[in-house]
Amino acid sequence: MAGWQKGKGWGWIWGDDDEIGALNAITPESVLNAMRLVRKGKIEDLGVGVDRRSFRWVGHAATEIMSYRTPLGERVAKDDVPGANEPRWHSTAIFTCDNVGTHLDGLAHITVGKGNETHWYNGHGEIEYGGDFGVLKAGADKFPPIVARGVLLDVAGFKGVESLPTSYGITIDDLRATMSWAAIQLRMGDVVLVRTGTGRYWGEAGANHAAIAGPDTAGITLESAHWLIEEHGPILIGSDTSTVEVVPYEESVHVYLLVEQGVPLGELHYLEKLAADRVYEFVYVATTNKIRGAAAGVAMRPFAMY
Amino acid sequence: MAGWQKGKGWGWIWGDDDEIGALNAITPESVLNAMRLVRKGKIEDLGVGVDRRSFRWVGHAATEIMSYRTPLGERVAKDDVPGANEPRWHSTAIFTCDNVGTHLDGLAHITVGKGNETHWYNGHGEIEYGGDFGVLKAGADKFPPIVARGVLLDVAGFKGVESLPTSYGITIDDLRATMSWAAIQLRMGDVVLVRTGTGRYWGEAGANHAAIAGPDTAGITLESAHWLIEEHGPILIGSDTSTVEVVPYEESVHVYLLVEQGVPLGELHYLEKLAADRVYEFVYVATTNKIRGAAAGVAMRPFAMY
Amino acid sequence: MAGWQKGKGWGWIWGDDDEIGALNAITPESVLNAMRLVRKGKIEDLGVGVDRRSFRWVGHAATEIMSYRTPLGERVAKDDVPGANEPRWHSTAIFTCDNVGTHLDGLAHITVGKGNETHWYNGHGEIEYGGDFGVLKAGADKFPPIVARGVLLDVAGFKGVESLPTSYGITIDDLRATMSWAAIQLRMGDVVLVRTGTGRYWGEAGANHAAIAGPDTAGITLESAHWLIEEHGPILIGSDTSTVEVVPYEESVHVYLLVEQGVPLGELHYLEKLAADRVYEFVYVATTNKIRGAAAGVAMRPFAMY
Amino acid sequence: MAGWQKGKGWGWIWGDDDEIGALNAITPESVLNAMRLVRKGKIEDLGVGVDRRSFRWVGHAATEIMSYRTPLGERVAKDDVPGANEPRWHSTAIFTCDNVGTHLDGLAHITVGKGNETHWYNGHGEIEYGGDFGVLKAGADKFPPIVARGVLLDVAGFKGVESLPTSYGITIDDLRATMSWAAIQLRMGDVVLVRTGTGRYWGEAGANHAAIAGPDTAGITLESAHWLIEEHGPILIGSDTSTVEVVPYEESVHVYLLVEQGVPLGELHYLEKLAADRVYEFVYVATTNKIRGAAAGVAMRPFAMY
Repeated sequence: MAGWQKGKGWGWIWGDDDEIGALNAITPESVLNAMRLVRKGKIEDLGVGVDRRSFRWVGHAATEIMSYRTPLGERVAKDDVPGANEPRWHSTAIFTCDNVGTHLDGLAHITVGKGNETHWYNGHGEIEYGGDFGVLKAGADKFPPIVARGVLLDVAGFKGVESLPTSYGITIDDLRATMSWAAIQLRMGDVVLVRTGTGRYWGEAGANHAAIAGPDTAGITLESAHWLIEEHGPILIGSDTSTVEVVPYEESVHVYLLVEQGVPLGELHYLEKLAADRVYEFVYVATTNKIRGAAAGVAMRPFAMY
Repeated sequence: MAGWQKGKGWGWIWGDDDEIGALNAITPESVLNAMRLVRKGKIEDLGVGVDRRSFRWVGHAATEIMSYRTPLGERVAKDDVPGANEPRWHSTAIFTCDNVGTHLDGLAHITVGKGNETHWYNGHGEIEYGGDFGVLKAGADKFPPIVARGVLLDVAGFKGVESLPTSYGITIDDLRATMSWAAIQLRMGDVVLVRTGTGRYWGEAGANHAAIAGPDTAGITLESAHWLIEEHGPILIGSDTSTVEVVPYEESVHVYLLVEQGVPLGELHYLEKLAADRVYEFVYVATTNKIRGAAAGVAMRPFAMY
Repeated sequence: MAGWQKGKGWGWIWGDDDEIGALNAITPESVLNAMRLVRKGKIEDLGVGVDRRSFRWVGHAATEIMSYRTPLGERVAKDDVPGANEPRWHSTAIFTCDNVGTHLDGLAHITVGKGNETHWYNGHGEIEYGGDFGVLKAGADKFPPIVARGVLLDVAGFKGVESLPTSYGITIDDLRATMSWAAIQLRMGDVVLVRTGTGRYWGEAGANHAAIAGPDTAGITLESAHWLIEEHGPILIGSDTSTVEVVPYEESVHVYLLVEQGVPLGELHYLEKLAADRVYEFVYVATTNKIRGAAAGVAMRPFAMY
Repeated sequence: MAGWQKGKGWGWIWGDDDEIGALNAITPESVLNAMRLVRKGKIEDLGVGVDRRSFRWVGHAATEIMSYRTPLGERVAKDDVPGANEPRWHSTAIFTCDNVGTHLDGLAHITVGKGNETHWYNGHGEIEYGGDFGVLKAGADKFPPIVARGVLLDVAGFKGVESLPTSYGITIDDLRATMSWAAIQLRMGDVVLVRTGTGRYWGEAGANHAAIAGPDTAGITLESAHWLIEEHGPILIGSDTSTVEVVPYEESVHVYLLVEQGVPLGELHYLEKLAADRVYEFVYVATTNKIRGAAAGVAMRPFAMY
């Protein structure tokens, strides 16, 4: 199987029909290697809670969860459930938008190219695969279960700050110094999670937009993304912000990672507990919902196991 | 920590505020034990694809996924994204209902009791915790990442049928014989998945309702549920049907498992590949979305690792 | 002001920016003329009830209405409303699709033209005005309040049948004979409603799809549409079916009316009561919702006044 | 038919099953009387535009309208429409909440009473008629087409201010003085619209929340509501604010009008044009959507005809 090349990264190497990019590098061997990192049996939930109030990019819809069936409603409707002592159901309906809460960006999330040349990862084109009901190629729903070595690069911890400043661009030197400080190395096939400290302001559901908005704009620069991919070969780069990359930017890390390299981004991961416990190496596990056509995950619960 | 008792099962043993029931039995020790089952590094996705057409109980809403931001729409709106070669976004909006596709039932999914006595697991009561925007106690969003030994009881395979007949009640003898046939034992803390063969009719998104509807009514009897819980102590019982238990029933396995025992049910799990490969023992991994108040999961992607 | 021409109809005569087509022909004078038809002060509701079960074209989403705020939910959430005797609110959330229930098709509902030439009424083009959040030109939300002389052409009544047969194409002769039978003339500026009898199967919410599906395919032919528009000059043509025109068809009445003539269609109008009372002439009143960008109305309540 | 009594108003006089309250007072005679007010044939749209950004009470959901079927999406899906020159469809999906934009409050919108005594207009009780999918009695979808004499009481105009101050309570004296200033009398059966001037800040879709929020809290006092109903007998009281009544309040006009008197409220009506043209008397026409169970209207387009 073709693979990563130092100095070049991944790219469109997985065949014309490929829809999952660097996640192809998850193999039985890589999974077994990752499993060796589970020494204590501990699990940390890396997802953030989501409700109507949750901080999000303004161009996405708020999440509404509504009680759909309730005991009172069923009594009123005389929808009787068989059994003694009057059993009744609860269920909920949900209106939401991908890209809300903790999530992975799918490889179709960003496109480049003008007019009919518009395309995303692997050349999948808008006029062939952009549909009304989500994308027909390389949706986030196509992601296999992700199990890989995870590495936390706690840049805020290294710098000794609560959170990085607004629009702080995390440089290659910052990443190198953080790795050295934490005595951690990267390996090909890793999931790299970069901590800015933004997660400490999330609380139960991200309601304090004012506190989150500033540090949420800190993130890696395009140069850092190149360096990570081309020197170290991660299959996923994540952070505790909604964008992973520094905002504003001139050229997008999203284009580089998603379109050119076929590497998903992981956004709004909760990294506070791992950082407090100085857990820098672990198994990263994440699964997306199987709603066909999604451009990204929504309100996910990735976790670290170590 | 209190725990399971033979002949009695779990029950309300985890404290007055508990919201996750038998999932409390997932401990670092149990996780480490489960990890020993990963010998090949193989992963099987146990989720089914979901779209508008997917088979579901008629009382739940259909799932709609709609392109929300598209390259064409952004061009029209002149929502320019910074960068060369005209970057543009895809995102989707989703309207769905929990209990759709592969999912876990949360401990608040079914209630018992009349009027103001209406309550679910651990006595959490409707007049205190039943809200307009989902449940305030014991929602499926409270489930921690689930990592445990998984066991497939391939009843359809044992019986040598494509799928069990309509409304077939899986008995204790069926389960015993299947275990013997597969040479597999249950242990306290397992996730038990019972295969009826219904999954073979799902296809890409469960569009063939007529084919699914019959075998989907096969499932365990209440006696079998008692026997599994009280003799073997699983923390989750799942199947490849939408109900797990045989339909119709007189008294519900849901009430017994969810309310009385605090044990989640796992529904519409895709078990065909595990069965074909005769993989009866594995690590089961599942995570629910973190949308606060959900009564159950939706379109999940649990997986088996072995 | 330019207007209708016999033998030619309306067309793109209202200026380059026009978004409402023939509805421009509603003027103070035409309104005053229509008002003279109100002799008894009677009002007939022409809308049909809509809920989750309602018959609709399979390519549209089902309508879900969900209790959003309830007295119980507010008590649980301690959202107290000021005042004595514990005031509490009810509100609902709605997920629906335009084109559901009684509705008017907006002038952007159908397009013609290939690729970048795709356009609708008045040349409004997809690459300029087709947006992610509805259409930016000629949405149904742009329709002014519609007040005009309405005429019922009760073809099923004239033929003495409960409802027209499946896929019955209503001819010019049928329309002429019905007008003669009812002793009613058409005038420029009318709203013409053609009755097939399908409405008698709707019941409270259109749940009996099997009964509705057959007669719902009866409707006017393209020739009849030409004749109506070019000889008589109506500003809106409606029916009691979901399509107005006979299905299947080779060339669409929708294209002719919406794109070429700028004349809205009115679908699923309830005409049973008017027919039973032999009310063939009345004031037709209809308003669309003001949600910006809608391609059609939804669950409307047009009415007849006479 | 029973009716209004001076000094007492309406009340629960329409029979035990009644669901529409004072709207029962719309009769053929009242309609004919109203029609006499149409002298010029002019129509004014009283609805405000709604989109995602629209001002609303914080406890309601934002409105999302999403392109559902588009020409590009249909091409991608190869959903071909019969006919020459490649016809294609536009349709939209909508997620919204009643009480958004211009709307009428239904008689079930507010309740009083504790626990199982919770009820709304006419004693319709929560434990009998409060459902999961909207209310089963007295929903706003039950409102007949409303056609009645409308009267504008332009309090802001009378006072010579752009808009009334924040939390200004409109008194009986204000209403009397405004009537005198405008030389207009009220009659039993009227729709009374009270102008605060808030509408001037709405713009195309109510995006400027800061400008709207202040004057939106001006409105009639409970005393004024009593005086209007008990001395003059209107069947609907509306305003250009989201609440009609002054906020904050101690006892709610909503309880008095909706529960006790069975009189709907009309909210966020656009009254600027009528005020500018000094049109104080007209026919008021409004229709609610026919989605069964709605607690209020949504994004309506009532209009004035004169």
